[in-house]
Parts: sequence; C-alpha cells; structure tokens
Amino acid sequence: MPDVVTIGETLLRLTAPPGFGLEQTEILRLEVAGAESNVAIGLSRLGISSGWISRLVNNPLGRRIANKIREHGVDVSRVIWTSEGRVGLYYLELGQPPRPYQVIYDRAGSAFSQIDPEEVDWNYIRQARLIHLTGITPALSLNCYRLICRAIQEAQSAGLKISFDVNYRSKLWSPEAARQAIQPLLPAIDVLFCTTQEAIHVLGWNGDPETILREAAQRYPRMTIVLTLEEGGALLWYEGQIYTQPGYPLEPIDRVGAGDAMVAGFLTGFLHGDPLRGLAYGVAYAALKHTFIGDIAWCNQSDLEQLIHNQQARWR
Amino acid sequence: MPDVVTIGETLLRLTAPPGFGLEQTEILRLEVAGAESNVAIGLSRLGISSGWISRLVNNPLGRRIANKIREHGVDVSRVIWTSEGRVGLYYLELGQPPRPYQVIYDRAGSAFSQIDPEEVDWNYIRQARLIHLTGITPALSLNCYRLICRAIQEAQSAGLKISFDVNYRSKLWSPEAARQAIQPLLPAIDVLFCTTQEAIHVLGWNGDPETILREAAQRYPRMTIVLTLEEGGALLWYEGQIYTQPGYPLEPIDRVGAGDAMVAGFLTGFLHGDPLRGLAYGVAYAALKHTFIGDIAWCNQSDLEQLIHNQQARWR
Amino acid sequence: MPDVVTIGETLLRLTAPPGFGLEQTEILRLEVAGAESNVAIGLSRLGISSGWISRLVNNPLGRRIANKIREHGVDVSRVIWTSEGRVGLYYLELGQPPRPYQVIYDRAGSAFSQIDPEEVDWNYIRQARLIHLTGITPALSLNCYRLICRAIQEAQSAGLKISFDVNYRSKLWSPEAARQAIQPLLPAIDVLFCTTQEAIHVLGWNGDPETILREAAQRYPRMTIVLTLEEGGALLWYEGQIYTQPGYPLEPIDRVGAGDAMVAGFLTGFLHGDPLRGLAYGVAYAALKHTFIGDIAWCNQSDLEQLIHNQQARWR
Amino acid sequence: MPDVVTIGETLLRLTAPPGFGLEQTEILRLEVAGAESNVAIGLSRLGISSGWISRLVNNPLGRRIANKIREHGVDVSRVIWTSEGRVGLYYLELGQPPRPYQVIYDRAGSAFSQIDPEEVDWNYIRQARLIHLTGITPALSLNCYRLICRAIQEAQSAGLKISFDVNYRSKLWSPEAARQAIQPLLPAIDVLFCTTQEAIHVLGWNGDPETILREAAQRYPRMTIVLTLEEGGALLWYEGQIYTQPGYPLEPIDRVGAGDAMVAGFLTGFLHGDPLRGLAYGVAYAALKHTFIGDIAWCNQSDLEQLIHNQQARWR
Amino acid sequence: MPDVVTIGETLLRLTAPPGFGLEQTEILRLEVAGAESNVAIGLSRLGISSGWISRLVNNPLGRRIANKIREHGVDVSRVIWTSEGRVGLYYLELGQPPRPYQVIYDRAGSAFSQIDPEEVDWNYIRQARLIHLTGITPALSLNCYRLICRAIQEAQSAGLKISFDVNYRSKLWSPEAARQAIQPLLPAIDVLFCTTQEAIHVLGWNGDPETILREAAQRYPRMTIVLTLEEGGALLWYEGQIYTQPGYPLEPIDRVGAGDAMVAGFLTGFLHGDPLRGLAYGVAYAALKHTFIGDIAWCNQSDLEQLIHNQQARWR
Amino acid sequence: MPDVVTIGETLLRLTAPPGFGLEQTEILRLEVAGAESNVAIGLSRLGISSGWISRLVNNPLGRRIANKIREHGVDVSRVIWTSEGRVGLYYLELGQPPRPYQVIYDRAGSAFSQIDPEEVDWNYIRQARLIHLTGITPALSLNCYRLICRAIQEAQSAGLKISFDVNYRSKLWSPEAARQAIQPLLPAIDVLFCTTQEAIHVLGWNGDPETILREAAQRYPRMTIVLTLEEGGALLWYEGQIYTQPGYPLEPIDRVGAGDAMVAGFLTGFLHGDPLRGLAYGVAYAALKHTFIGDIAWCNQSDLEQLIHNQQARWR
Repeated sequence: MPDVVTIGETLLRLTAPPGFGLEQTEILRLEVAGAESNVAIGLSRLGISSGWISRLVNNPLGRRIANKIREHGVDVSRVIWTSEGRVGLYYLELGQPPRPYQVIYDRAGSAFSQIDPEEVDWNYIRQARLIHLTGITPALSLNCYRLICRAIQEAQSAGLKISFDVNYRSKLWSPEAARQAIQPLLPAIDVLFCTTQEAIHVLGWNGDPETILREAAQRYPRMTIVLTLEEGGALLWYEGQIYTQPGYPLEPIDRVGAGDAMVAGFLTGFLHGDPLRGLAYGVAYAALKHTFIGDIAWCNQSDLEQLIHNQQARWR
Repeated sequence: MPDVVTIGETLLRLTAPPGFGLEQTEILRLEVAGAESNVAIGLSRLGISSGWISRLVNNPLGRRIANKIREHGVDVSRVIWTSEGRVGLYYLELGQPPRPYQVIYDRAGSAFSQIDPEEVDWNYIRQARLIHLTGITPALSLNCYRLICRAIQEAQSAGLKISFDVNYRSKLWSPEAARQAIQPLLPAIDVLFCTTQEAIHVLGWNGDPETILREAAQRYPRMTIVLTLEEGGALLWYEGQIYTQPGYPLEPIDRVGAGDAMVAGFLTGFLHGDPLRGLAYGVAYAALKHTFIGDIAWCNQSDLEQLIHNQQARWR
Repeated sequence: MPDVVTIGETLLRLTAPPGFGLEQTEILRLEVAGAESNVAIGLSRLGISSGWISRLVNNPLGRRIANKIREHGVDVSRVIWTSEGRVGLYYLELGQPPRPYQVIYDRAGSAFSQIDPEEVDWNYIRQARLIHLTGITPALSLNCYRLICRAIQEAQSAGLKISFDVNYRSKLWSPEAARQAIQPLLPAIDVLFCTTQEAIHVLGWNGDPETILREAAQRYPRMTIVLTLEEGGALLWYEGQIYTQPGYPLEPIDRVGAGDAMVAGFLTGFLHGDPLRGLAYGVAYAALKHTFIGDIAWCNQSDLEQLIHNQQARWR
Repeated sequence: MPDVVTIGETLLRLTAPPGFGLEQTEILRLEVAGAESNVAIGLSRLGISSGWISRLVNNPLGRRIANKIREHGVDVSRVIWTSEGRVGLYYLELGQPPRPYQVIYDRAGSAFSQIDPEEVDWNYIRQARLIHLTGITPALSLNCYRLICRAIQEAQSAGLKISFDVNYRSKLWSPEAARQAIQPLLPAIDVLFCTTQEAIHVLGWNGDPETILREAAQRYPRMTIVLTLEEGGALLWYEGQIYTQPGYPLEPIDRVGAGDAMVAGFLTGFLHGDPLRGLAYGVAYAALKHTFIGDIAWCNQSDLEQLIHNQQARWR
Repeated sequence: MPDVVTIGETLLRLTAPPGFGLEQTEILRLEVAGAESNVAIGLSRLGISSGWISRLVNNPLGRRIANKIREHGVDVSRVIWTSEGRVGLYYLELGQPPRPYQVIYDRAGSAFSQIDPEEVDWNYIRQARLIHLTGITPALSLNCYRLICRAIQEAQSAGLKISFDVNYRSKLWSPEAARQAIQPLLPAIDVLFCTTQEAIHVLGWNGDPETILREAAQRYPRMTIVLTLEEGGALLWYEGQIYTQPGYPLEPIDRVGAGDAMVAGFLTGFLHGDPLRGLAYGVAYAALKHTFIGDIAWCNQSDLEQLIHNQQARWR
Repeated sequence: MPDVVTIGETLLRLTAPPGFGLEQTEILRLEVAGAESNVAIGLSRLGISSGWISRLVNNPLGRRIANKIREHGVDVSRVIWTSEGRVGLYYLELGQPPRPYQVIYDRAGSAFSQIDPEEVDWNYIRQARLIHLTGITPALSLNCYRLICRAIQEAQSAGLKISFDVNYRSKLWSPEAARQAIQPLLPAIDVLFCTTQEAIHVLGWNGDPETILREAAQRYPRMTIVLTLEEGGALLWYEGQIYTQPGYPLEPIDRVGAGDAMVAGFLTGFLHGDPLRGLAYGVAYAALKHTFIGDIAWCNQSDLEQLIHNQQARWR
C-alpha cells in the first residue's frame, strides 16, 4: 500500500510546439497532465510510494493516461474504468514573453466529473499516511465536490494527514465560488499549498507573504503552509516559525506543472520528518520542472541534492 | 455567390502518425475534416465555386477550421460564430492491414450540434445552383435534423438541385434510425451518393449493384445515383441508363475522405452538364485521395485529366 | 471590396530549424512571406478587410502562396496567374546571438518581377480606402518600379490614402539607388513607415528620432509618420504632434515580419480614425510577432488589447 | 504475485526512420526491446498478470527500460539495480524489400550479462504459474547460462510450467553452440516455441512442419509445441494432435517482436486452459505486431477477437 | 587521381514527405541530387575512386552540395567556385500509385549552366581511366553543350573510356532536340546507358529490347550498351553478345536515382574487367536504391553481394 | 599532405531534443563528436588543410563517423579500419539553467582504445606543420597513452609544432591521475590550451589568470598558452606578453564543442603567423559554436571577420 494517495482528474494535454500558436500548428504533442497525478508521479520519482485514483474511459486514450502515470511507478490499480463519458483534454500554447501561455479546456462531461464517491476503494486509502487533494476537483461537478468532502472525512477518521493545494483555475469558477467551496474544508487540512495571489484573492488573506502566513496560522493553528512566490521561491510556516527559500535563476521552457513539483518536493521532505528539507526540495524540483517539456520533471532525489548543493555539472 | 453550398459539421482530426497507435503516439497531426467541407474544398479545387456553412466557436480552434477550408478558396463568410459550445474532434489511427482504421469520436455538445436553423443565411443559399447535404447531419441532434429538413425545403422552393450523400456512421446511430431519418428526404434528392453497403443496410435496397440501381430508380425516377463500390469504382444511374467506371490500382496511405472526393469529382462534371465526365472525375479524384495524408486530395482538374488519360508521368 | 489593398511580391520562405545552419540542416520549413501580404494578413486578422494583388505561377508552389494568404481571409481574387516565370524564394537562418540572421535570396526572374501594370485590375483598387506599398517593389525590376508609380497615380486620382513602408533591402540595392527611386514618391504618401536607420541612410534625414520627425514633417506636412526604434518601440508624427510608444520586453524566436506587423497594427487604428490606438496596436502586434515561427503573428485584436492592458494571463 | 514471470535482457533499440540507413540517418527512435519483456508486456496487455526480472544500471537509460515495461502494467519490482556495467543497445534499420533488416548489436558487458543467479528473488518466482525463458539468455554469458539452469530447476521444484522460445540469434552464437546449450534444457520444457528454421538448424529436427512436430513429440511427449511458419501462420502440437492456424495478409511496417507477440498470445489462451484459442490469439497478435513501430503491438484482447472474427472495421 | 571523373550539375532537391503534396507540406527535406554526382558517389561507395567536377556558388548552399558529395569519399577538389549565379534546385513530390511523381525544376541561371569549358582542369581528367557524362548536360545551355563536346574530345585524346547515360528529361527539351544533340556524340561513346523508351523515342532505335541492341551494335560496333527495362532488370550488349539480368521484387520508397545506381554498379564491374558482374551489380544497386529516401543507396559492395547471392538476412 | 594532423577518438553523440531528458525522449539526434576531429573540422572550415587519424569499426556507424568528418574537407585517408571492437558513444542531455548538461559515456572497449601505435602512418604525420593532441586520449587506455607519447616523439623528431588541449574529463579519471599523465608531456608542447579550472586543478597552477600564465611561462618558456575563461573570453601568453580577448554576449543552444572551436580558431591565426588574430578568431568561433546544434560551428572565416568587425547583419 502506498504512503501517499491522490485523487483527481487527469487530462490529455495537447501542446503546440514552442513558437507555434494553436491556430497555426500542424502538430500537437500528446501528453498526460493532472495536478494530482503530477504530484503522485513526483513523489514516486523522489522515492515516496504513491497511488493515484481517478475515473477513466476504457479506450486507448484512457489507458494512455493510466500508462503514463504508471510508467513512473505510481500505483494505478484503483482507477475506476468505465465505458461511458469522454476523456477530458486541454490545448496548450506555450507563449514566449510577451505572449502569454494559452489554455483551451475541453473537459466538460469527462468520465471523472461523473464519479460516484461510492465507487472509490476507501479501504485502500485508509492505509496510506497522507492524502493529497486540490482545489480543482470541487470545481468540476457536484459529484466531484462530494468526492472531496468524503475523502477528507475518510482521511480524518483513519488518521491520515491531509494535504491540499488551492490550485485556483479562473476558467473553471470565480474566486468567490472557489472560496465558498474551499473555506469549509480548511480546518481539516494539515498541509496547505497556495500562491500569494490565491491567498489574497481566493482565501481572502491579506498583506505581504509573512503577514499572510501569520494571519492564516492564527485561524488554523495546526496547519503547515507552503506559500509560493511568483519568482519561484517559497515561504514555509511550520510549527510557529517562518522559513524562506529563494528560487533559482531560470530559463524556462514549459512552466506547467511547477506548482505540482513544489508539492511533491515538499511532501517528500515532510514525510521523511524534515519539512525544511521539503522546502528546499520543493523549490529545487519546481525550478527543474521549468526546463522539461511536459508536466513532469524527469529528475530524482540525487538531481535535487546536486542542484541544492550547487555541485558544478561537468558535461563531458 | 457560389454555385454550390454545403452545410455540415467539421471537426478537428487528430491523427497518430502511420505505424503508431493512439495509445502509443507522442505526436498527433492536427487537421480539419468534415464530409461537407471536404466536398466544398474538392469542388473549389476542381474549379466550381463553393460555400460552406456551419457553426463554430470563435477561438483559435474554431478559426483554424474556417481558415483551412478558406485556404482552398471556399467561401466561409456565412459561418455562424459563437462563444459557446465546444469544437468537436475525433482521433484517428491509420491501421495498415490487418489492423483496421480506428476512430474515437469526441463531438458531443459541439457548437454545430446546437445550431438553430433560423441563424442560417437562407438567402445566400437560394442563389446557388446546388446544395450538398449528408446523412451525418441528421444524426447529430434534433436541431441538426431540423436544419436538414429546412435546407431541403428552401432548396426546393428556390429551385436548387439537391445532392445527398448517405454517409452512414455506425458510431452515431443504428441503420434503422438512419433509415427512418433519411427515407422521408429521398423524394427531394436530385443526386444521391451511397455505397452498396449503405444501399442494402440503410436504405434497404437489395441485390447486386445494378439491381439496386434499377430498384431505386423505380421509386425515385428523377434521381441521379452514384453507387460506389468497395474496390474504388462506381456505377452511375443517369436518365435511365447505367454507366460503370472501374477503380484504379491503389497503394493507399490514408483512405479517409475518398468518398467526399468522389462526390466533388462527380458534381464537377454534373454541373458542367456532363455526368459521365463527373463519374470519371469522381473515381479518379477518390483514387488520388488515398495517396494524401489528410482528408483532402491536393489535386486539381489537370491532375484528374492526366490520370484519366493515363499520361505517363516523367519524374525528372 | 476590401478597405485596404496591397500589391507586392510574396516568396517561399525556406527556414532552417532554430539552432541549425543552412549548410547543416536536413530539413526546411516551407512558409510564405512577403512584406505586403504580411500586412494584408495582419489587417485581416485585426478586422480590416484587405486584398492582395500579385503575379504568381500557376503551379503547386504559386497556388500555395495564394492559399496561405487566403487562409487568413485576405481577398486574393485579383492575383494575376501565369504559366511563365518562376516562384521566387529565400532561404533563412535564424541565428541566436551572436550569430546574425542570414538570408539568401533567390528571387530573380520571378513571375512578379515581370508584371505588366496593365494586367492589374485598377478598378478594384479604386474602390478601396487605402493602398499599402513598400520600397521593396521598385527594387525588383523596371516593370515593378512602373507598377508602383502607376499605383500611386491611380490611388491619388481615386482619392485613396497611400501608405508606404521604406523597407530597405541591402541585398537588392544601395541606399543611394533606393533614395533616388523613393524620394520622388514621398510627396504622395499619406502614411510613411520607416526605421531610424532607413530615415538616416536611405531618406537622408538626420538627427535623433524627434529631430528626424520634425525635419520630415517640414518637407511633407500632410504626412503621418511612424518611426520604429531598434528596441521595438515607435514614434508617431500625427497632425503636428509626436507620440511615443515604448516596446515590450521580448524573448524573440523569429524576428522576421515584425515591421509588417507594426504596419498592420497601426493602419488598423488609423482606419478606425484613432492613430494613437494604431500606435499602441502596432507596437504590441510587432512584439507578439517575435514569438511566432514564420512571418505572421497568429493573434487578433483581443490579444492586442490583452497585452496593452497588461491583463495577467492565467494559464490553467 | 503475477501469474507469469519472465527473466531476460532488455536493450535500448535505436531505430533509423523507415527509408533511412544507419549510415544516413540524423535521427534515431529510442525504444526498449527484449524478447522476454515483450512477452511480459503482451501478456499484461492481454489480461494475464506478469512480472519481468532483469538487471539494470541505475541511470536514466536503465530507468527508462523499467519505465517503459511498467507502462504496460508489468511488475518490475524485482529488477536488480546496479551502478556498474552498461546499458546494452542495438541499432536497427528496417529495410523495405529487397533491402534486408539490419541489426548492429552493442550489448557486450551489459549489466544483465553480469547477473549473479543469487541476486534473483526466487521466492517471488515460485509463486507464479508459469515462467517464460528464451534461448537468447544462455548465449549472453556464462552467468546467464547458469541463470537459465537455475531458473528451470527452481520452476520445476515449485511446480511452475516452463515456457521456452528458442529465439536463435546468429550474431550471438553458432547453431551448434546453441544446440549444445539448449538441448539439455528441453526435457524440462512444457511449452516450446520455435520456427521451422530453428527446428531444423538448431534443434536438428528434420522434415516438413508436421514431421518435425511428430518427431519432437516422440522425444518430448509432455511438450506442447508451437511451430511458427515464415508466412505468419503456426502449427500447434497439443496432447497428441496437430492444429493449424494460417496467417493473415500483411502490409508490414516493423517485423521485430512478432515472435514475442505469438508467445504472449498463445500463453494467454494456454493459461486460460484453451490452447486452441491461444493459437488463434498468437497468430492474430503477431500479425497485428507487424503494423506497429516498435517491438510491441498496442492492442488488447478485444482487438484480437475483432480480427479473428473478421468484424468489418468501420472507420468513421 | 581518381579512376573515374564525372562532370555535371547537381541541384538541391527539396522533397515533400511521403504522403504530402508540394502545395500541402509545411516541411521539405533538403538533399543534394545530380545524375553525375550520384554516379560518382555510387562508384566511391563500391570501391572505385572517383572525382566530380562542377561549378558552384560559394555560399552555404553551394558548399552543402560539395560537402554531401565529399561525405561519400568523392574528390571535389576540382569544383569551380564562383560568387555569381544561383544554386539550382528542384521540388519533388513522391506520389504513391496512382499519383505520379512530380518534379518542379527551378534551375535556370544556375552557376553550372554558365560554365566556361576553359575553367575546367582538363589535366586532372586526363589522368583518369574513364569519364562519365549524361544527356542532361547538353540540355542546360550552349556552354554546357560545348563542355560536353570538349570533354569527349579531351577524353579521346587522352585514351579514357567514355561512358554516357542518355538520361532524357522531357522538362528540359524535346526528344528531337535531344536526338540532334546526342547523336553526333555516339560514335565516341564506349559505354552507353539508356532505357528502352529513350532508345526508341530519343535515339530512334526500334523494336523489342534485343532488336534495339542489335541495331545499335551494327551502327556502333565498339559500344558496350546497358539497356534498362521498366521492371528494373537490364540487358547488356558486350562484345557481340546479349546478357540479361532480371530485376528484384521491390516495395519502392523513392525511385529517384535508381538509374544512376545502375550506372555506378555496372561501371564497378566493368572497371574490374568483369562486365557481367557489373550487370549484376547495376541491377542490384538500382533495386536497393528504391528503398532509400534520397538519390543515394547507402550500401556498399558487400550489400550487393549479399543480395545477389540471396543470403537470407537474419535481423536479430 | 595537410598542414595539421590530429589523432584521437570520435564518438557517436546521441542527443535528446532541447527540453527533453534522456529518460523521457523518444527521439535522439545522431551526431559525430570528438575533440580532435572537431578541431580538424574547424581548421578545414577556416581554410587550413587538416587530417584526422583514428581507428574505426568498418560498419555503417564507423563509416558514418568518417563520412561526417570528411564532409567538411578533412582528410580521413589514414583512418585505421578494423572489424573488431565497437563504436563508442555518448548520450547527451542539453539542460537549460538550472538543469545541468548531462553526459552518459558508453565508450569502453571502443576500436580506438585498442589502437596499436604501430598501425599509425607516422610518415604521413611527419610531413605536416603541426600536430594537435588532447588530454582525453591518454585517459582512454594504456595503448592510447603510448600513442600520445609516440606522437610527441615523432613530431619532435620531424620538427612539427605540437599543440595540446588539456581537456580534462572528470568521468574518465581523477585530476591527480590526469596530472601524472600530462605533466611529463608539457615540456614538448608548443601551444597549450586550458581553462582556468584545469590550470588550477589538473596542472596545479594557482592564482588569477594572469598569475597562472606567468607561472606557467616560467616553467615552460617556449610555450604559447591560451587560457580560456568561463565567460567565453580568453588570455593569450605569447612571446612574453599577455593579450586579452573578452567573450561575446551569448544565448547558447548547445555548448559542447566550444573549446574545440577556440583551438581551431587560434591555430588558424597561429599558423598564418598571427597569434593575435588567432586569439580573436578563437573567441569568435567559440562564441558562434554556442548557437549551433551539434559539436561544429558551421561557419567559415568570413563569418568570423563579420562578427569581429561587428558588421551589422541585415536579415532581409
């Protein structure tokens, strides 16, 4: 049984080659992308056993999603297979500055959005140490919102740690709707991940990063908080103290998935009982993510250590 | 105003490279594909002015569809643009024998399926010489079925010729459902395109190809019929006579769109008042289609003439 | 009839992939590129109807040029088709610093260079609001020089605005030859586009950008002038005033076509009666152009507005 | 614990694109290929749980091998990881007739060739129903030969069925050397796979296919034998009877791995207690393999059923 | 000094990917192609030292042509470099049946077409054993025609064998013009290569292949003649006897250059004093050429021997 | 006979596309890479005749290595061909910051590592003006170390200049082992290339760059030294004086081979009797190298002059 379980939707990601627009390109790269499965993959790559639960159409596209997650060693044995619904997808255009990244979602009616919480193997989950959830799921459907509530309830009763990434998606709902859905969940969360923008606009916490953390800590004293900064660094609130980790200078190729890498890196240290190492891992893993095409940083723990200790790479 | 107008849905076509499965490929070619727009493109390439009417989402993907049809000279000025709905698509795997071609449709809820017949510029259509429709449209939604009925009614009242390709899609409906929808339309059709399989299983006409034609002609005496054969040839029923055109030896690369090429080729001759030339054009254009990746044969009239007259190509 | 008509030569552009030299590459991207057609495409994308007139060989390569311009909605119905001459082309190497961009022209004897001004449908042009010309055309042949003179004369007599981009090409002629050809045309120009380098070395106007504008305005008091700066910004002289628009920070992928995007952006605002908006559009559209492979920025008006108003893009 | 366990070497496969020679190509596809892992993958795809044991270097290339096998659901948890040795590879050129396929092996000194039988988790293997081995392994090194002997001994003592594919490789050893190594193993084999060429030249059995089977059966009465024919069909000797399955007409893209597909298909039926279905599956799966780039047919059981029952594919 | 010298024009060859038309493709492969350099390359690959003389523009494209010929070991030290003229090219579309191969030449005004026979290092040529020329050269320009005449004269006076391939190009001249230019050269030719079509339509020799050879031999008794057949085989007239070599069954990918491979194969045997071996080599090398993208068969002598002796290829 | 001869090993270089990891990529570019052959190629491109000596397997991969070096005009006639051993290779991942470049060597047992100094055509070498060697060779095998010693001895006795690039490879040996092997060779060296890191850690010279040069010059008074700096510039010690050349601002695509470009550029000036021009050439050629995929900068002397004299590139 894996140490960490995640539940969520994973989509096909159809990406135009760098330098091409979606209206222009003749070619799309076909990848597999989901916040929760990205985290599960990152954990598995960094040495923490993980499982991913979702609902997939049993056709070549659905199987592809499971394959590509399993490729990294994630346990996908609890995926719920169905012959109905469709495989959700999104189109991605990686803009160089000043052109913004562009996403076109096409995920309505996906097999996952129709999940019934009863289908999930909760017994499997209860044996893990930690469950990781995101704020995308409750935005997808009422079923999905009920799934999150049930997951938190099951985790609490079984004594699992609960990790939650706010992951606000402006194309799925408004900040207000997100706040209404997420706020009631916060008291149960052990580890919270959010950006300063999300803290302010979704959670309604104000001020500079340190103020945000202190305000949040007052309301949710048990909570460990990782607050990520625009420039790639992060702040950690852990047991009453603030720790800071600056980011690395980057020449980014593909920014998508960096937040999930932050989560996977942090949880790795956290589950080894060393949240500070987690902070360092999270920032390093997120930095490396920017240099890989696709949602995943194809690194492992030794690559993080090498970056953190600034070992000079000799390339020949 | 164009001589021929078509109405129908055009999808994104996402094709795995030859030799790859959809579960396997990292790359998809992105093309634009629809039976009616294929015909409009083919007509334009062969020198007949054509227009294509549809309903598209006004985003890079919807614009791409209009662009790629306009690229061939088809008039897309009457496309209805909307900010709602989605861009339909299908995934395609080009199997070499004995692996079959595989299609995964993902078109439910497309912008076109929600078309309201009132949105269409019927005045534009009334000025054409011929309207071309297919049996795919009535399978998509009730709105689409109403659209087809209205189109036939408008065409009749304005004195246009009506061309119809049965185009049965087993993934959209059953043969029985197709028959119920299509049979009432037949008396209005001037030019009918169908395969022998469709004649038998959808239209319920029996026997060998010649018998099928005679039976059909008895019921619909005004109708011109192009009956296409598996091996690429076709039979023509025109004014009480049967004409036969055998197919060409092929080394196919991509079979999709060959039927639409047959329609475009035939209508070209037909509109020039020479249905026999149309038969020859249709079979030749369909044969050439098999040698191009994508739904379109990038040929023009002189290429057809060259193939028909068996002019030896000198390649250097 | 379109609001803007352009006349000029469009070439095949054969580009080595980024990071490859022309002597090295096994692969070339095949694109379609011409200053005037780039402007026509940009206008059409930004919502201004446009037409492009040229002379093309009626073979797959010539048809490709017309197709790719028509794809964006430009009217190519007045292209003059010929069976003689050749399709001009150029080879392009996109050098990363400190390697310069390299161009090898192979355009001598093209179908366009042999154009006879009598072939052009002047009646079509007379119905437009503005004609756009460039300083490339008079460099191509005597026929082309006569074409430009005739175009200006026709436009003047029909009351069209005349827009002119200096577009000096050092591989086609010397600055002196360019000046001799272009200077006599200037009194007729309503909107002039040039770089500071061109102002100094071709037009013989000296000083810093503001001085250049004042000097030019004294000689040609009616003229609106857009002076583009190396760093991507531009100055506008309009009705006795100077307006400035700084450029955007860029990570360029392909610089070619940025000047044409500036023209298309400016003329869009100008034709809407708002030259200041045109200045903002021109600089924004040129900036976005740097991020697309090929001569065209696959954007539309809303993308410009988004960049100008610095709306944060949320990519997921 | 999986039903089937395989042990063997898997290499990187570096393939020139179709139509290119290894001396010519600028590009290589990077795949993962090994007779035993191909069988394990095929079984997993067809619904039989399988595990693959090998010895790999713990670097990105070794991890890639494990990933790509795990992607299909094969259990790779018993792979032995080492920091020494190298990742074996081979270069492949897919010749169209009359150009032959060309292979350049570069596998000497691989991590697997240095395996110590003591490293293997024999306890894991003892819990399976069947072990599959090939004649490649004993050709690789003395250690590998000892590994095969040990595996057979362990399987026998634990009551597993033993499946063996002769898989003669002329670039690894002579027919005589192969015979000396393989013949002593035969009495322990429950299911033997060989081609008629291998039967004659390696095993020394003579005559037409039926004679070969009868001769072999006399010597090894318990043995089930699948004898594959050049044209893609196969003969089965099972409990004293000969069954024949002809091949399918093929347009092959990549022949490599077809033999392994035959094994996986047959064992699937065999383990379901239906060797005749296994014969049909093996021939169908091998036929489909010819149509996929790479060593694997990305099909599953329903694809085999569809081919066997000759269900007409409707591609749209 | 090489044994064989060739003189002729080599072009850039811009090829659409298989399955794409020139009007359609976004990508072109860039290769180097010329009948004479193909022969020189083939000879060098088969072990005969060779040199190629031409006239090239000293820019990346011209250097690329020399590089790619030198890559195979051909001596290009006598190429004449110029800063004027252009690099000739042609566009190629590889049609699958029934679509024909399509070529668009764009070679007028090339550097080679302006060659002055005085520029050539005749002294270098005089030291070879054989010179190979083709019927393309005299079609290119008057200078080129004079070059061929001078080359034959020099070769005769220095005692070289003269080899000539008729290589009729219908896009360069008419059969009559070709006959008028080539017929006067024939008495000097030692080894003539032509197809049956060329024999009939250009040289004016009639009848079946054997009759053609006998008729030709009567007129030019010293001449060795290789007459190639449509299906890939060839007939040889050598010292009063006819020898026949049938072709191989082919699955062609790219037919261009097969005739040049025939020449290189034959001359290899011929120069080793064994014209019969040359006939076998020529037919085998031409057959293999059909399986490589580009004008060159990347084989060597052992590949020919393997094909001729029908050694079974074992691919693993 | 060439002016410069180099001896060394050249490998296949298998590179993941930019943005991909080796564990991730499906595609590898296949190039040819070796410090000594890179220098020979650079010299040939810059107009200095050069020859490269090595030992290669006579298969398509070995021939490919020779071809790709010969393509640039390097004389490879003295390569020693063998049917034994293997073709060495390395895998390369081009990391964007902060991801480091990653190399996986797989070169043990290569044909070159087994070279016998007696096989080399020393007579050929004795006729050159300069021999270039690197510190990679003595790290490969005892045979290779003996080869270097013999080469120096032969060069000295024949009066050749000896050029040596330290080229320390941490994956081949320790700094101490490198020092022990290289230090005894230094008195014979005429031109030494090293980085400041190598000077300090391998050669044991300390201090800032100028101090390093002065210290080295005291020990080896005859020696010309080129000391390369991290930021791309270099210092030259020549006849008692220090000259400095700063680097160029770079946007690097592929850093590998830049040091070899420095050597080729410097030696070009040096052999023309102008070491200062060599310094300028070396720094410019190394800068340009960073902008080409692969080990080679596809430039020539005029490109260097253009960069050095900062001629503005006009790209159209």
